[in-house]
Amino acid sequence: MDRPPAADAGEIPATVSPSMGRRRFLAGSASLIALSSTSLLLGHERALEASESDPMRVPGSPARAYGERSRYESASRAADDSHSLTPLQDLHGIVTPSSLHFERHHNGVPAIDPSRHRLMIHGLVGRPLIFTVDDLQRFPSVSRLAFIECSGNSRMGWQDAQDHTVQELHGLTSTSEWTGVKLATLLDAAGLQPDGAWLLAEGGDAAALTRSVPLTADVLSDAMVCYGQNGEALRPEQGYPLRLLLPGFEGNINIKWLRRLKVGRAPFMTRWETSRYTDLMPDGTAYQFSLVMEAKSVITSPSGRQQIRPGVQEIRGLAWSGRGRVVGVEVTVDGGRTWRTAALQEPVLSKCHTRFCLPWTWNGQETVLQSRCVDQTGYRQPSREALIKARGIHSSYHYNGIQSWKVEPDGRVRNLHM
Amino acid sequence: MDRPPAADAGEIPATVSPSMGRRRFLAGSASLIALSSTSLLLGHERALEASESDPMRVPGSPARAYGERSRYESASRAADDSHSLTPLQDLHGIVTPSSLHFERHHNGVPAIDPSRHRLMIHGLVGRPLIFTVDDLQRFPSVSRLAFIECSGNSRMGWQDAQDHTVQELHGLTSTSEWTGVKLATLLDAAGLQPDGAWLLAEGGDAAALTRSVPLTADVLSDAMVCYGQNGEALRPEQGYPLRLLLPGFEGNINIKWLRRLKVGRAPFMTRWETSRYTDLMPDGTAYQFSLVMEAKSVITSPSGRQQIRPGVQEIRGLAWSGRGRVVGVEVTVDGGRTWRTAALQEPVLSKCHTRFCLPWTWNGQETVLQSRCVDQTGYRQPSREALIKARGIHSSYHYNGIQSWKVEPDGRVRNLHM
Repeated sequence: MDRPPAADAGEIPATVSPSMGRRRFLAGSASLIALSSTSLLLGHERALEASESDPMRVPGSPARAYGERSRYESASRAADDSHSLTPLQDLHGIVTPSSLHFERHHNGVPAIDPSRHRLMIHGLVGRPLIFTVDDLQRFPSVSRLAFIECSGNSRMGWQDAQDHTVQELHGLTSTSEWTGVKLATLLDAAGLQPDGAWLLAEGGDAAALTRSVPLTADVLSDAMVCYGQNGEALRPEQGYPLRLLLPGFEGNINIKWLRRLKVGRAPFMTRWETSRYTDLMPDGTAYQFSLVMEAKSVITSPSGRQQIRPGVQEIRGLAWSGRGRVVGVEVTVDGGRTWRTAALQEPVLSKCHTRFCLPWTWNGQETVLQSRCVDQTGYRQPSREALIKARGIHSSYHYNGIQSWKVEPDGRVRNLHM
Repeated sequence: MDRPPAADAGEIPATVSPSMGRRRFLAGSASLIALSSTSLLLGHERALEASESDPMRVPGSPARAYGERSRYESASRAADDSHSLTPLQDLHGIVTPSSLHFERHHNGVPAIDPSRHRLMIHGLVGRPLIFTVDDLQRFPSVSRLAFIECSGNSRMGWQDAQDHTVQELHGLTSTSEWTGVKLATLLDAAGLQPDGAWLLAEGGDAAALTRSVPLTADVLSDAMVCYGQNGEALRPEQGYPLRLLLPGFEGNINIKWLRRLKVGRAPFMTRWETSRYTDLMPDGTAYQFSLVMEAKSVITSPSGRQQIRPGVQEIRGLAWSGRGRVVGVEVTVDGGRTWRTAALQEPVLSKCHTRFCLPWTWNGQETVLQSRCVDQTGYRQPSREALIKARGIHSSYHYNGIQSWKVEPDGRVRNLHM
């Protein structure tokens, strides 16, 4: 085989000998080993395991047409029939792998043959049109990174605190790079009439989910009909072959398996926006068309049901706003007495997850961790108390209160409502 | 079933009746259909296929723990034992799906158990250290989008033109969001000595690939030891569980399956940088340590072996530079007589693929398409002629000449050297 001589005599022991000098470089990193130069050179201190299982002694696998993750990796969406949750505690950066993007569907994921799929635009337009997927891909294209968050994300915040993970509490939000055609381009092609003020969007699944979309300047500037996600075609559970993307709006209005857009003068009052997806207010009225997902942040590490050790660690989390960019995230490590400014990881993009982090040394005593963010409009993520004061506790949607994680003296991290 | 009544009576025919008014909205979009309002309302003109195969009439699939692409999608890396190529002609935006990131390995992809993997830092450091993957994940983390390009990408540009696709010619480049620890942080922890000027990086595969890395200010500012790719763990073929990331440098020095970093005073002159990965110059000397990938751009659509139709289309492509941001891309649709400025898709990031596009109406006559880019240093991508004048034709690496696509009168697109 084509194995070169080693460049010098140094080799890493496959398992570390207990006789090697152990040193805690970072408290909490029990396995981090400091070596004396001498011990490196002493062959008899090496615990080489030159077995067939040593990946340096056997040729590896050939290249593959379509790659898969390592069999040692197991991060997964907690899934039932109708939804699955992104494992925020296991993920890095801001891009959600498409295989781990949360799902929410109302009658399963349809198996759609893209060559048979059509999108119709009709109603108050000069020229009703039907598009194939190929047609849409010939139009001027646009790509952007954007989060999609289910309006029901974090809904357990309205209830009594239970001992859940960040995935279970907040895993109905994900970020992808979406590619498609601007909605405005397609409405131009169809000849949007001046009195067209709302759009009915209909999905081609067995639930035929329908929502009314206001044709505001923001929507006309941002909305897209998407066929791409993270470089390749949309995933089936994200609307393959076409979905409506309304950056910043609640997930369900980003209609998946999009088959129809009808322009009208007023909202269409579909059952999905009368019997569902409204917010029950303290006075018993229902707030309708609460479409924008307001600013939210959550610490993903340390987070619920994790176990930490005393010493230096990095607090990491995500912040986002349906109104634009996140401009600041503050973190408290003492239950809100003092707040420190977290670093925001570049790029910081509008209506997109933003990664924040802050170094922290845990002294081993009970405490509470929280994060709060401010978006470009100046809106500040509210405390749970302030949110409930304004909204009551009977809504199922749009919970964006500050998340509290209690750290027990034994290092266990637990969901807390305060 | 939970199927709501349709919001109104409009339905999209599953197949389009030939009696419907056909209209070419965009020339080249033969299947794009314009409907009269009347025809929409006439039930007998609908070709409804209300069969069991209609995805609106059968419940879909349940949610899944780890998603897969649609069975109708087939974009793939052209793969052999030692490498595979990203299908640039099939992709959108700037993020390359991890499953389609190009591969290059020298003795296969090793199957590494991350719990047994170690990274050793030694040599001219005050305190040699061995890290587990868990240790590294506790250090302050950093994420960035960056391209990695094989130094041999586009190497067929040095030879006579063959009728290849853009994937075959230029598919050894991909972009991911990478997450890890800054190399500088780890060298600080180990106590980099003042005379440490080069680093030996060694991979834990059966080729034990080794390269020498200069510890310049740029490298210390940019380099990372990565464990994350596009949100999840590195893929096996990208170095799982650890790889060195040197943004802007040729692919092979971004050592995969990283197991060892040794600090020295001078380059280590490994076989990989003496017998390979040097550039043979016209005078017979070999240029060594040509590490930076200079600015390049390529039109991905229309591109080699595609077929286009007369009318409006969008020219799309990618541009990148190992020296920083791309600041401009120009496109010619007349073989270089005139050049137009392409639009750059946001975000435009340093040492990262940048998507460009330009609308174009093809009149059906033979022509040549080209793109050229300029990076933030002012460097302009050279013509093939200028590149060969400076470098000769005996190198295998670092080809970044302008790509020419000839459009034949029948719409076929062909690789051309001019």
